[in-house]
Amino acid sequence: MKARVHVMLKNGVLDPQGEAVRHALGALGFEGVKGVRQGKVIELDLQEGASEADVAAMCDKLLANTVIESYTVEIL
Amino acid sequence: MKARVHVMLKNGVLDPQGEAVRHALGALGFEGVKGVRQGKVIELDLQEGASEADVAAMCDKLLANTVIESYTVEIL
Repeated sequence: MKARVHVMLKNGVLDPQGEAVRHALGALGFEGVKGVRQGKVIELDLQEGASEADVAAMCDKLLANTVIESYTVEIL
Repeated sequence: MKARVHVMLKNGVLDPQGEAVRHALGALGFEGVKGVRQGKVIELDLQEGASEADVAAMCDKLLANTVIESYTVEIL
Protein backbone atom coordinates (compact mmCIF):
# COMPACT_ATOMS: atom_id res chain seq x y z
CA MET A 1 0.00 0.00 0.00
CA LYS A 2 1.01 3.57 -0.50
CA ALA A 3 0.48 6.57 1.73
CA ARG A 4 1.03 10.23 1.11
CA VAL A 5 1.82 12.64 3.92
CA HIS A 6 1.58 16.41 3.62
CA VAL A 7 3.57 18.41 6.14
CA MET A 8 2.86 22.15 6.23
CA LEU A 9 3.90 24.88 8.62
CA LYS A 10 1.01 25.81 10.90
CA ASN A 11 -0.87 29.03 10.22
CA GLY A 12 0.88 31.91 11.92
CA VAL A 13 4.32 30.34 11.64
CA LEU A 14 6.54 32.44 9.39
CA ASP A 15 7.35 30.68 6.12
CA PRO A 16 10.45 32.36 4.62
CA GLN A 17 10.68 29.77 1.84
CA GLY A 18 7.14 30.56 0.72
CA GLU A 19 7.81 34.29 0.96
CA ALA A 20 10.90 33.88 -1.24
CA VAL A 21 8.82 32.04 -3.83
CA ARG A 22 6.17 34.78 -3.75
CA HIS A 23 8.80 37.46 -4.35
CA ALA A 24 10.44 35.49 -7.13
CA LEU A 25 7.11 34.94 -8.89
CA GLY A 26 6.47 38.68 -8.74
CA ALA A 27 9.93 39.42 -10.14
CA LEU A 28 9.23 37.01 -12.99
CA GLY A 29 6.10 38.95 -13.93
CA PHE A 30 3.44 36.71 -12.41
CA GLU A 31 0.95 39.11 -10.89
CA GLY A 32 -1.80 38.47 -8.43
CA VAL A 33 0.03 35.99 -6.24
CA LYS A 34 -1.26 36.93 -2.81
CA GLY A 35 0.44 34.30 -0.74
CA VAL A 36 2.59 31.19 -0.96
CA ARG A 37 3.13 28.46 1.62
CA GLN A 38 5.63 25.72 0.99
CA GLY A 39 5.63 22.34 2.64
CA LYS A 40 6.78 18.79 2.20
CA VAL A 41 5.08 15.81 0.65
CA ILE A 42 6.33 12.35 1.56
CA GLU A 43 5.19 9.27 -0.34
CA LEU A 44 5.60 6.05 1.59
CA ASP A 45 5.56 2.60 0.06
CA LEU A 46 4.47 0.31 2.90
CA GLN A 47 3.89 -3.40 3.37
CA GLU A 48 0.27 -4.53 3.18
CA GLY A 49 -1.44 -4.35 6.55
CA ALA A 50 0.02 -1.04 7.64
CA SER A 51 -2.65 1.31 8.91
CA GLU A 52 -3.21 5.03 8.88
CA ALA A 53 -2.35 5.00 12.60
CA ASP A 54 1.11 3.59 11.79
CA VAL A 55 1.71 6.45 9.38
CA ALA A 56 0.49 8.98 11.94
CA ALA A 57 2.99 7.52 14.43
CA MET A 58 5.77 7.99 11.86
CA CYS A 59 4.70 11.60 11.44
CA ASP A 60 4.66 12.26 15.17
CA LYS A 61 8.06 10.66 15.69
CA LEU A 62 10.00 11.74 12.62
CA LEU A 63 8.29 13.27 9.64
CA ALA A 64 6.76 16.38 11.18
CA ASN A 65 7.79 18.75 13.93
CA THR A 66 4.36 18.98 15.52
CA VAL A 67 5.28 22.12 17.45
CA ILE A 68 5.29 24.19 14.26
CA GLU A 69 4.02 21.82 11.57
CA SER A 70 0.75 20.07 10.92
CA TYR A 71 0.38 16.96 8.81
CA THR A 72 -2.31 15.09 6.93
CA VAL A 73 -2.18 11.42 6.00
CA GLU A 74 -3.80 10.09 2.84
CA ILE A 75 -3.92 6.39 2.00
CA LEU A 76 -3.66 5.89 -1.76
CA MET B 1 -8.65 31.05 -5.60
CA LYS B 2 -6.17 28.57 -4.25
CA ALA B 3 -3.97 26.12 -6.07
CA ARG B 4 -1.79 23.35 -4.79
CA VAL B 5 1.28 22.18 -6.69
CA HIS B 6 3.09 18.91 -6.01
CA VAL B 7 6.67 18.70 -7.19
CA MET B 8 8.28 15.26 -7.07
CA LEU B 9 11.55 13.91 -8.42
CA LYS B 10 10.91 11.86 -11.55
CA ASN B 11 11.07 8.09 -11.28
CA GLY B 12 14.62 6.93 -11.70
CA VAL B 13 16.12 10.08 -10.22
CA LEU B 14 17.95 9.29 -6.99
CA ASP B 15 16.21 10.75 -3.95
CA PRO B 16 18.75 10.91 -1.10
CA GLN B 17 16.33 12.77 1.15
CA GLY B 18 13.75 10.03 0.79
CA GLU B 19 16.40 7.36 1.36
CA ALA B 20 17.50 9.12 4.56
CA VAL B 21 13.90 9.12 5.79
CA ARG B 22 13.54 5.41 4.98
CA HIS B 23 16.69 4.59 6.97
CA ALA B 24 15.62 6.75 9.89
CA LEU B 25 12.17 5.11 10.01
CA GLY B 26 13.87 1.69 10.12
CA ALA B 27 16.17 2.84 12.90
CA LEU B 28 13.15 4.04 14.89
CA GLY B 29 11.58 0.59 14.69
CA PHE B 30 9.06 1.15 11.91
CA GLU B 31 9.24 -2.00 9.84
CA GLY B 32 7.91 -2.65 6.38
CA VAL B 33 8.77 0.68 4.85
CA LYS B 34 9.78 -0.35 1.36
CA GLY B 35 10.40 3.03 -0.16
CA VAL B 36 10.13 6.74 0.52
CA ARG B 37 10.08 9.63 -1.95
CA GLN B 38 10.10 13.18 -0.72
CA GLY B 39 8.90 16.16 -2.66
CA LYS B 40 7.57 19.66 -2.25
CA VAL B 41 4.06 20.95 -1.96
CA ILE B 42 3.40 24.60 -2.72
CA GLU B 43 0.09 26.25 -1.89
CA LEU B 44 -0.62 29.39 -3.89
CA ASP B 45 -3.19 31.99 -3.00
CA LEU B 46 -4.08 33.64 -6.31
CA GLN B 47 -6.37 36.41 -7.47
CA GLU B 48 -9.67 35.33 -8.96
CA GLY B 49 -9.38 34.69 -12.66
CA ALA B 50 -6.05 32.91 -12.60
CA SER B 51 -6.14 29.67 -14.53
CA GLU B 52 -4.50 26.30 -14.25
CA ALA B 53 -2.35 27.30 -17.25
CA ASP B 54 -0.97 30.26 -15.27
CA VAL B 55 0.04 27.93 -12.47
CA ALA B 56 1.64 25.53 -14.95
CA ALA B 57 3.66 28.45 -16.36
CA MET B 58 4.86 29.26 -12.82
CA CYS B 59 5.92 25.64 -12.40
CA ASP B 60 7.81 25.58 -15.68
CA LYS B 61 9.59 28.85 -14.96
CA LEU B 62 10.31 28.63 -11.25
CA LEU B 63 8.68 26.03 -9.06
CA ALA B 64 9.95 22.84 -10.67
CA ASN B 65 13.15 21.82 -12.39
CA THR B 66 11.46 19.94 -15.21
CA VAL B 67 14.67 18.13 -16.15
CA ILE B 68 14.50 16.00 -13.00
CA GLU B 69 11.16 16.89 -11.43
CA SER B 70 7.55 16.43 -12.44
CA TYR B 71 4.67 18.48 -11.11
CA THR B 72 0.92 18.27 -10.77
CA VAL B 73 -1.41 21.23 -10.37
CA GLU B 74 -4.62 21.01 -8.39
CA ILE B 75 -7.13 23.87 -8.18
CA LEU B 76 -8.78 23.93 -4.73
